[in-house]
Amino acid sequence: MQATHSIPDQKQELLVSHQEGCQAVIGVSLDGWERKTFFGESSFEEGGHRVEWLTEMKSKSYWERLADLQPEVLISGWHTPFLESDFLRYELPSLKYICHVPGSVRHVVPRDFIERGGLVTNWGGSISQMVAEHALLLVLACLRNISQWRQVIAQRESGKEVVFFSKTLFERRVGIHGMGAVARHLANLLRPFGCTLKGYSSGVPSRVFLSAGVQGVASLEELFSESDILVECEALTKETSGAVTRALLELLPEDAVFVNVGRGAVVDEQALLEMAAVGRVRVGLDVLQREPVRIVDPAMSTQGVLVSPHIAGPTHDRLRSCGQFAIENVRRYFANEPLEGQVTLAVYDRST
Amino acid sequence: MQATHSIPDQKQELLVSHQEGCQAVIGVSLDGWERKTFFGESSFEEGGHRVEWLTEMKSKSYWERLADLQPEVLISGWHTPFLESDFLRYELPSLKYICHVPGSVRHVVPRDFIERGGLVTNWGGSISQMVAEHALLLVLACLRNISQWRQVIAQRESGKEVVFFSKTLFERRVGIHGMGAVARHLANLLRPFGCTLKGYSSGVPSRVFLSAGVQGVASLEELFSESDILVECEALTKETSGAVTRALLELLPEDAVFVNVGRGAVVDEQALLEMAAVGRVRVGLDVLQREPVRIVDPAMSTQGVLVSPHIAGPTHDRLRSCGQFAIENVRRYFANEPLEGQVTLAVYDRST
Repeated sequence: MQATHSIPDQKQELLVSHQEGCQAVIGVSLDGWERKTFFGESSFEEGGHRVEWLTEMKSKSYWERLADLQPEVLISGWHTPFLESDFLRYELPSLKYICHVPGSVRHVVPRDFIERGGLVTNWGGSISQMVAEHALLLVLACLRNISQWRQVIAQRESGKEVVFFSKTLFERRVGIHGMGAVARHLANLLRPFGCTLKGYSSGVPSRVFLSAGVQGVASLEELFSESDILVECEALTKETSGAVTRALLELLPEDAVFVNVGRGAVVDEQALLEMAAVGRVRVGLDVLQREPVRIVDPAMSTQGVLVSPHIAGPTHDRLRSCGQFAIENVRRYFANEPLEGQVTLAVYDRST
Repeated sequence: MQATHSIPDQKQELLVSHQEGCQAVIGVSLDGWERKTFFGESSFEEGGHRVEWLTEMKSKSYWERLADLQPEVLISGWHTPFLESDFLRYELPSLKYICHVPGSVRHVVPRDFIERGGLVTNWGGSISQMVAEHALLLVLACLRNISQWRQVIAQRESGKEVVFFSKTLFERRVGIHGMGAVARHLANLLRPFGCTLKGYSSGVPSRVFLSAGVQGVASLEELFSESDILVECEALTKETSGAVTRALLELLPEDAVFVNVGRGAVVDEQALLEMAAVGRVRVGLDVLQREPVRIVDPAMSTQGVLVSPHIAGPTHDRLRSCGQFAIENVRRYFANEPLEGQVTLAVYDRST
């Protein structure tokens, strides 16, 4: 977050900050469902600015309308099409601030918009809390064999031997792969369980982990071989894609728990499912290599694998809060107040 | 827990403490499965005392063998038959200490054994941690609609509207009915979520709640009407049986979460299931009025109800620790050291 949203001197050729008091143009590039989900009955009209909704984002005329509008602020969402660098530079010189209501901006905003001093915000850190919460749920559910409860009840009734082994999270060794806001929140949620927390993230020094109460280790090999529970929340980059190999997974202790709330492409999914199928590891996945997940996908029918339909992010009850957060940011922008949840280049590069 | 296990003066007619150095008799009233579950390869032989296993507890000769043995210490478990008061008083005057390996002693030990100065221990407080952990799992699972995940995945695929509303635990109002060790541990686990914690327990003053970081309220009515999430962990007594009535449940806010890890008989189960069926409340139950739960029971097929097969207690990985805890207590007894996890009259009366 920056103290004010003034633009560095050398980048002023295209972008200047808003002059207070002037009427500005706000483009809202959200479809009807996003509008309802994020804002319900609220709107952006309050500030006395001109607000234009661009809901038909799949039509060709979308780009023409956007260029005609020349908005100073653009509100974007999950369904907003990617803004090409050249389009922004030559067709939309008016644009100074992209207020992205959800989280991941990479599929909407090109990096060089930020390089040139363009402002970008998203729903900020509060959402990482939800992801950490979901990781905790998946961990506890795996430890207690939630997908076998029904089977256990049926087996008990028929007098069969119940194959079921529940475990506690208290005092376990938890390894966290990744060191963003999710990892920080997760460390906080795990504190009352008295777990030993270790972490590793590509290029992140151990002092960053220490500040979150996590012991940084020297390698993924060390992390995996010493974790009863491994939570995957590393950002997806060229370097981390496929970083969790079969060899690495095989270092996990017998009957370990592996939970992924980050990106599916980081992990050798086939190796993971094979290990789960033979009871070598318990698995909880909110993300998979191919999404959205389908009922016929192997992960859905592998014993010992619990799949959630990519819902770690904001819970439904918080989507309105995200909308309010965006509205408040737009108000701040026009009042020349510091923005919340700003996507700096560093944040952009580490986002999933 | 008492500082030493000496016996009050007025009760000495039957029970005197162990004389150090003397060989004593230890009876172990556990079946083969309990022996394996709690002790694996460990035993009680170490102390130089005579240890007798009484595994055939359903045969008539069990009582004769027990009376012949005249043990000073009896190790008991889930399957140990109830020790009638008169039997203990007249047939087993030797018995000074019942080391109950699991939790609930009421189905094994009569209250007056403790009144007469008899010592009783169980697996102590560490197990309440597991129960609190399970309550947290059920709460998170209800908030995230875990039983609908599969359905959501199938619906998304077929392009149908997904009926699914996930919620977060962060900053929710949580009400706890009951104020034993489970409630304390639960309050501790909920701390990082920034929840508002309120509690009520029959006859427990509000200062006891405050010491656990929970605000005690004046009535169950107040508790239920102000809790987004209600966790039931009240002990079952004459007073609390059926205390959670339909009228009380109807005070819960719309779409509240109700989780029971205490005793099924405290709650009007039919009212609860009816409310769940119409989406008025989300329900997680580890205990039911009739146990063990069967697949055909209404709770198993009611939308919005998640049932676990009474597994909140110790997880399987901790049962060996319970065995070790019992062995250590027997050692302490013979060394005249203070016992852990002692079941005093107050504990006995508040146990489930």
